[in-house]
Amino acid sequence: MKRKSPQGIKEESMSILVVGSVAFDSVETPFGKVDEVLGGSATYFSSSASFFSDVNLVAVVGEDFPDAHLDFLRSRNVDLAGLQRAPGETFRWRGRYGYDLNEAQTLDTRLNVFQDFRPDLPENYRDADFVFLANIDPELQLEVLRQVRKPRLVACDTMNFWISGKRAALLETLKHVDILVINEAEARQLAEEANLSRAARRILDLGPETVVIKRGEYGVIMFNAHSIFAAPAYPLEEVFDPTGAGDTFAGGFMGYLAANRNLAEQSLRRAIVFGSVMASFTVEDFSLNRLRELDYAAIEDRYHRVRLLTEFDGPA
Amino acid sequence: MKRKSPQGIKEESMSILVVGSVAFDSVETPFGKVDEVLGGSATYFSSSASFFSDVNLVAVVGEDFPDAHLDFLRSRNVDLAGLQRAPGETFRWRGRYGYDLNEAQTLDTRLNVFQDFRPDLPENYRDADFVFLANIDPELQLEVLRQVRKPRLVACDTMNFWISGKRAALLETLKHVDILVINEAEARQLAEEANLSRAARRILDLGPETVVIKRGEYGVIMFNAHSIFAAPAYPLEEVFDPTGAGDTFAGGFMGYLAANRNLAEQSLRRAIVFGSVMASFTVEDFSLNRLRELDYAAIEDRYHRVRLLTEFDGPA
Repeated sequence: MKRKSPQGIKEESMSILVVGSVAFDSVETPFGKVDEVLGGSATYFSSSASFFSDVNLVAVVGEDFPDAHLDFLRSRNVDLAGLQRAPGETFRWRGRYGYDLNEAQTLDTRLNVFQDFRPDLPENYRDADFVFLANIDPELQLEVLRQVRKPRLVACDTMNFWISGKRAALLETLKHVDILVINEAEARQLAEEANLSRAARRILDLGPETVVIKRGEYGVIMFNAHSIFAAPAYPLEEVFDPTGAGDTFAGGFMGYLAANRNLAEQSLRRAIVFGSVMASFTVEDFSLNRLRELDYAAIEDRYHRVRLLTEFDGPA
Repeated sequence: MKRKSPQGIKEESMSILVVGSVAFDSVETPFGKVDEVLGGSATYFSSSASFFSDVNLVAVVGEDFPDAHLDFLRSRNVDLAGLQRAPGETFRWRGRYGYDLNEAQTLDTRLNVFQDFRPDLPENYRDADFVFLANIDPELQLEVLRQVRKPRLVACDTMNFWISGKRAALLETLKHVDILVINEAEARQLAEEANLSRAARRILDLGPETVVIKRGEYGVIMFNAHSIFAAPAYPLEEVFDPTGAGDTFAGGFMGYLAANRNLAEQSLRRAIVFGSVMASFTVEDFSLNRLRELDYAAIEDRYHRVRLLTEFDGPA
């Protein structure tokens, strides 16, 4: 896919297939309140990844989903051929955060059209090289993998609900996954192990070659068989709304990898930092507001700031 | 102070003055239980700092304090001329940790001889260049500062008990402190601010030029007027007992600074990493057991591992 590169997208970058949710979020934080704004894992992921790579989106929305949101995604070069429109209402989530912004309290979840969602990949999506299975039913994640021919890299997310409720299907999915991107508490729950390093080892035994553990304001830690990489979160004086931070992280991470087609350790590390940088922008405003006005220069600038934040030299 | 350097101590290093507690700890973790083992903030601090620098210790013990513990401290080249022995029993602390090793539950605290402790510095301690005020009553911290002539660097620790109970005295102490070393929750409490970056800024307005915030298994973040530095904790598969980790960190941090007599940003960053490395050893066993058998080569080796853990290059 060739085109000019307004946001740093490399001409030879590979496109990413993402399956997940497109939703309306209603969120309350100590700093404000929004109703039925654009949200959903696939939305955050694809908007973030779009700064680095092309994205093919597989999801479902209802009849109530406004064209303006579709236009936004298209403006970010997100391909919507895989976005189904089904009779009924779009998926809705309502949540609240306290001053400790690390964890959302879910007030209401309405699956609506997502209830009967069956992913059906357009023919030209089936040759995807980079696949991200956002946090959905692991049986649907498997269904997507069955439709993809020979992906070069499969990453996935999951949550406590599936870890406890659909463990067998999740373990089956993990056998086909290269990189698991997961929260700290979920990593401990999945591995049934309180020590995070040991939990990571156990997860690597389940299939993934790499596990990327998201720790909120403490950053990200990545484990594989040979190394560990820890990156801090960019320290912000204003964290407005953490919703979507994890999916935005995954979007930047996968976007960078797809853009550079390099899965070596140093590339994975840079991808982690780009993912963290993207997440740090998302939390500065509600919904995708901050990503809407972002440009690639600001992303690179913050990447450099994270380098300054972490560098130290050898013992004197 | 000149002597050979079995543990990497530089001949021209400056000695550190520390005031704090020497105690008996009784600790229960999911992995075991110990009764009345050697503990206390000044003990952990000075044992850790002794790998880098000479230490002059100011504290008090009771008549029940065994010579074997004094011999251990002397074997680490800790000067005990400032250690008072008072009639009565040594300070005792009893605590418990659950599988979440981040926070201790205090079961019992008996101040004993510490109740009437008044620091009285031997004459040759009063020219100290590097001073660490461990977590004690801020009025006693001030009393120590009154006895020290012209310190080059003063660092201090404190806790929730003093932040709420002796706030005025603590704020007075902070006016004379260069570096505050404090836990994350305490930083928020002291600044009355939930956002950590903003809390750090407020603390810098109280006097200290630098604030070093300890985040347990998430590492350390250091703020000053011009920069922020984040260092991860060394990931351990076996965390046995977190008691003393914070004071061990401070010991390695101050020890490195005193050894290198360099307070520039890059030196402070290396000191943070050495402090983290020292803490990572302490938590591998009860009491000071791990520090007793440690050598400088193992410290340097782990320092290099932390570099590998954190390094990444510029955007490709």
